[in-house]
This record gives sequence, C-alpha cells and structure tokens, in this order.
Amino acid sequence: MEKFRLMAPGPCMIPDRVYQAMTRHIIHHRSAEFRSLVKEVVEGLKYVFQTKNEMLIFTSSGTGGMESSVANLFSAGDKVLVVRAGTFGERWTQICKSYGLAVKTIDVEWGRAVNPKLVEQRLKEDKEGKIKGVFTTHTETSTGTETDMEEIGNILADYGALLICDSVSGLGTCNLQTDAWQIDVVISGSQKGLMTPPGLCFVSLSEAAWSAHKKAKSPRFYFDYSNYRKFMESSSTPFTPAISLLYGLREALSMIREEGLSNIFSRHERLARATRAAVTAMNLSLFSINHASNVTIVNGPDGVDVEEMRERMLRRFGIYIAGGQGDLMGKVFRIGHMGYCDAIDILSTISALDIVLTDMGHIFNQAQGVKAAQDILGEE
Amino acid sequence: MEKFRLMAPGPCMIPDRVYQAMTRHIIHHRSAEFRSLVKEVVEGLKYVFQTKNEMLIFTSSGTGGMESSVANLFSAGDKVLVVRAGTFGERWTQICKSYGLAVKTIDVEWGRAVNPKLVEQRLKEDKEGKIKGVFTTHTETSTGTETDMEEIGNILADYGALLICDSVSGLGTCNLQTDAWQIDVVISGSQKGLMTPPGLCFVSLSEAAWSAHKKAKSPRFYFDYSNYRKFMESSSTPFTPAISLLYGLREALSMIREEGLSNIFSRHERLARATRAAVTAMNLSLFSINHASNVTIVNGPDGVDVEEMRERMLRRFGIYIAGGQGDLMGKVFRIGHMGYCDAIDILSTISALDIVLTDMGHIFNQAQGVKAAQDILGEE
Repeated sequence: MEKFRLMAPGPCMIPDRVYQAMTRHIIHHRSAEFRSLVKEVVEGLKYVFQTKNEMLIFTSSGTGGMESSVANLFSAGDKVLVVRAGTFGERWTQICKSYGLAVKTIDVEWGRAVNPKLVEQRLKEDKEGKIKGVFTTHTETSTGTETDMEEIGNILADYGALLICDSVSGLGTCNLQTDAWQIDVVISGSQKGLMTPPGLCFVSLSEAAWSAHKKAKSPRFYFDYSNYRKFMESSSTPFTPAISLLYGLREALSMIREEGLSNIFSRHERLARATRAAVTAMNLSLFSINHASNVTIVNGPDGVDVEEMRERMLRRFGIYIAGGQGDLMGKVFRIGHMGYCDAIDILSTISALDIVLTDMGHIFNQAQGVKAAQDILGEE
Repeated sequence: MEKFRLMAPGPCMIPDRVYQAMTRHIIHHRSAEFRSLVKEVVEGLKYVFQTKNEMLIFTSSGTGGMESSVANLFSAGDKVLVVRAGTFGERWTQICKSYGLAVKTIDVEWGRAVNPKLVEQRLKEDKEGKIKGVFTTHTETSTGTETDMEEIGNILADYGALLICDSVSGLGTCNLQTDAWQIDVVISGSQKGLMTPPGLCFVSLSEAAWSAHKKAKSPRFYFDYSNYRKFMESSSTPFTPAISLLYGLREALSMIREEGLSNIFSRHERLARATRAAVTAMNLSLFSINHASNVTIVNGPDGVDVEEMRERMLRRFGIYIAGGQGDLMGKVFRIGHMGYCDAIDILSTISALDIVLTDMGHIFNQAQGVKAAQDILGEE
C-alpha cells in the first residue's frame, strides 16, 4: 500500500482543494473569464507579499523569476552585491555572472544568516555609490536559515541600491513585509508556502525597480518586464500561461486568506520549534544557527548513512525527507515543514525517524523525540 | 447551465484522463520516481517528434522554448534568416533582435506558406555562408498555413545553417519528421497537439545544434542548454519543474501512442477538410491558401461584426472560437481543431455558427454547412 508524505523544503504537499481546482476546464487566455482569474490571483498574491507594488506572474520555476530580475534591472558591467550563505545565494552569483555583472559577494558561513551590519559596511565602503543592487535570500533552504530582511531593508533605505529578495521558499511561511521593509523586488514560486504545484513564479516590483528597468540593457524576451507590464495592466499575460496552476493557486490563496497570514506564520513557527525540540531530544544536532521556521536541517549522526536513512524513511513509511545540497550532500538531512503541513505531519515524521534511527544503531532515548514534539504541539 | 467547448488554436481541450492524472500527489524532483516519470515522458515525446535527438523539457510557455534556441545557439551579431509569414514569424524576428542578431527576413503574404525556393535563393545569395540559422514556423496559427518543412529541410541539408522550427501548434497535429527531414531544432508546447494544459515546452536538438551551442555567447541561465543537458542525461531537470503537468503529459502521450501518429494526422486532416467544406457551403471564404489541418481561418462576412459573433457563440452555446491576431483582429475568426478534438466538436461548432450567423443577417443556405461537414465526417 502506498501512502505518501512529502516532507521536503519544496516542492511540498498540496491540499485536495487545490488539486481539484486544477481539473477545471482550460479557458482561453484572451477571454474575459481568464482576466478575472488573473485579477483574483494578483489580489491574493499582493496580500501574501504584503505589498501594493505591481506583480508579474511567469510560467517558470522560481529560478526563472530570479533570472528575470537580473536581466531586467541591470546591464553588463553593473556592480552588484550578493549575500552568499548557501546554494541559493550561490545561484544569485551564477545568474549575475551569466549576465556579465561585476559581482561582489558577502560570504557567510553556511548555517548562519548574514549580519546586516556587514551589508551596511560594504555599502559604506562603496563611496562612489556604484553598487546598483543587493541580492538576498529570505530563507535559505540549503542551510535552514532566515535572513533579517527587515534590518537589511532599513539599511538599504539610506543607499541607492535596489534590494532584491529571493523569497521562493520564505513567502507565506515566514513573515516578509515587502512594502513596510522597503524591498524593491521580491521573487516567489507556487510550490512552497503558496501550496500549489510548481510551475508559476511571481515578481513584485517597486517604483525604483521600474526606473532601473528603463535603463537596463541585458537581452531578454520571455521574461521582459515592459512587455509583461503592458499585458498585466489588463490582467492578462503576453504568452499562454499555466492556466491549470492558476486555478490551483486561486484556491490556495483563498485558503491562505481563510487562515490569515499571522496564523500561518505562527503555525510554521510552532512546527519548527517542535521539530527542533524533537531532533535535539533524539541526540541529534541542528545544522543552522539562525533557524528558518519552514525547514529544519539536522546533522547526520555518527555512524548513520544519511542517504540510507532517507531511503528507509521512504520505503518503510512513505515519508520523503530531503538530503543535503551541494557540499552538504550525505552530511545532513532536511525536514521541510512549509505550506500545507500540520502537527500530525511532524509527529508522524518524528515517530518514523525514531524507528529508523534506532534500527540503524543511533543511540538515544526512544520516544523522547515524539514526547518533546508533543509537549509543544499539544499546547492549545 | 455552463457547458464549455474550447475551439481555439491553443490552448485546447484536455481529456479527462489527463486532468485526473494531474491530481496525483506531488513527488520530489530529486527522487527516483521523478526520474522514471521524466524518462517515460522523454520517450513519448521522441515518438511524437519522430526523433532520436536529445530532448529538453522546460517549464515555460512555448515562447520560452523559442527564446532558448536563440540564446543558446547564437551570439550577438550572428546573421540569421527568419521566415515571417504571420504573428509567430514576427515573434522569431523580435526574439532574434532582442539578442542582437543580424536578422534578415523573408516576408511572406499572410495566408500563404513560404515557397521553399525563396529560402534556397537567400542561402545561395549568401556566398560567404554567413547565415548561421534559418527560423521557421511549422504551422502558423495566426494565418492557418502549414510550411513545407520537408522541402526546407532538404534544401538546408546543402548549407551550413541550422534549421530551427517552431512547431508549438504543429507537433502532434500535422506530420513533422524531425530526423528524416533533418530539422536541427524543433520546439513545441504542451497545450496543443499534446493535449495537456499549457506550461511545459520541449526542444529537440541535433548534433549540429549542440556544436553551435558550444560557441554561442549570449547570456542565459534558466534556459541554458549545457546545464539542462547535464541533468536530463539522468532524466532530471536542474530546477523544480511543473510536476503536475508532467503527470498529465505522460497520460496524454499514452493516449497518443494508443491512437498512433498516422491516425492522428489523418483525423486532423479530415476535421480540417470538413470544416473548410462547411464554412465554404455557408457562403464564407477561407483566409489561407496553404491550409494547415489544425486550424481553419475564416474571413468575417460582410456586415457581420466578427467579435460580436464570437461573443454570441460563447454566450449562447458555450463555444469559444478565436479572433484574429495582430492586423487580422476583427477581420477573421479562427476555428481550432487540434489535439483532443473530434467529429462531433466540428459538427456542433458548425451548427452553432449556422444559427448565430443567420441571426446576424449573413445570407446563406441554412444547414448546408452542417450537411457538407456530415458528408465528410460521416464517411466510415
């Protein structure tokens, strides 16, 4: 019998309501009904992004959205600063280099969030104000850390550089106040906090970002913001989008409004606290110092083959937890608790992990992990 | 009561089997199950593309795939030739210009397919062999024409230029033999002949295309072929793809194999013949000279407001037919019969059109259109 739980930091589990919404018949993307669908989705997205900024919807992975910001806001030779604290910070660096930008990085030890003062220091050192953009990662799923975007937003407000934030995994799981924190560009995807299958990505753009766009000369077509803006002004898209996923997203956005953003953030925070308490009680250590509340990264215990453990979790219990990315492959495992995830998902994952780790010879007090999670998740 | 028929040249109607397949739970894109899904899909796509060439799968609209070929195979300043015979030929021109290519066009009167000898002439005139690529459109849905790709493939075989073919709407509706006709690059999308919702696109690449890729210097990241190839070699994708759409596509590809490509092509050909006979019998004229068999473009009759007619078709009968694109807006209407479309869809569309056009004062012999279609579609 197959019963599957996807406990990865994206893609994530999807509510039945969303799957059902996706089976609605395809409509034409130049019809009035389609425009009303896009309008509803954009309103819902603005609620989650906490913004009044313009919103663009692309059919692509989150990485497409990241590239779009580089291609549309900068030109070859422009100086930019990338905060690199994991795989997704590294991805920013690669994209910027692909477009010939002059990339400076702040390299942060994996597992830690950048100290915002380091960003300020770099901007101060740049006396001629040549740094045109600062690229950040809201929650870095490769290391399980959350960046203090509020503080970075405060700092950037005094400088001319655009603040660009990859919140593909963060949005709708950890608080991100696009407007209040003055984040010029926020990029997210459908498959994490937004509880929809992968395939859509979203970009919000401040007025300053639109001004920068006017001067940017990198080649682009599919992701071109000017062309997109023209269509999105009438709630449309220039090219045929993933209509089924938009149906699903509309439903997921309704669910998000029903629960309310602050409830969603505290649910994630509680699931994360319970997971950390549980693994700690199981004689395991946490990889991250500045914990994000949408994923918990655990160091593989001595003598246990992490990949074999993940395989056993899947084969015996139908639970998929993620492995390490990049250099962390085989060294850590990652329990995602983002989006459509509740207390029972955590309790069952911890229970299964308890059995598998015991079988594999890891020494700890059995059932103490489950108890630690229960103590937190059992609170009314 | 709402009962909807999407008779547009893409996106198109979707079989229930495909919708149902899309509701399967999301799996992780780094899992063995995902790799086996991609493997099956790639095999199915190669059957439809009639190719042994490597196949890449992107999460994007078809336009993303078109851009990928420009960004990955050429560099700024490269000389290329675009066959421009409608909206999608114009799109090739725009994309090539966005990337700074030196674009020459063959401008063909809308409604006609290019004479392949014109392509040969242009290549002959290019004595230094500077034309590095020829961009074509297999079936141009804005004008309802089909290009003779076989003949163009034969001609190109004697020259050094890459042959690139947008078959977003053509693939799986009109015969296209990628390998036999020596087409270096074929681009298609999920939402037309492949009977899957929009959001995926596919690119097949010959060895010559891979060689050109090695020298191409345009910036790119999300659509970068080298990176993609690395992942697709192990039946994976570099970024989180639209997994639900891949499930749907796998099911649609099974259906395509069950029916068989040659049956599919003759079904489209018969639906097209019936539609042309019907509208002609209704005192309407066809826009195209070189008919594609996946869409029929009809000139709006004198005294009838085409957009009002389309609106009535939708409101009274739930049938969506498309309007004209670009300069043809308001002048023609387009009946799509591609992908999941059968005889009954054509008979009902013609019946409804008969009623609406009569109401709007168009003069013709009522029921003769239906009869003409029946004569063709009633054949055993």
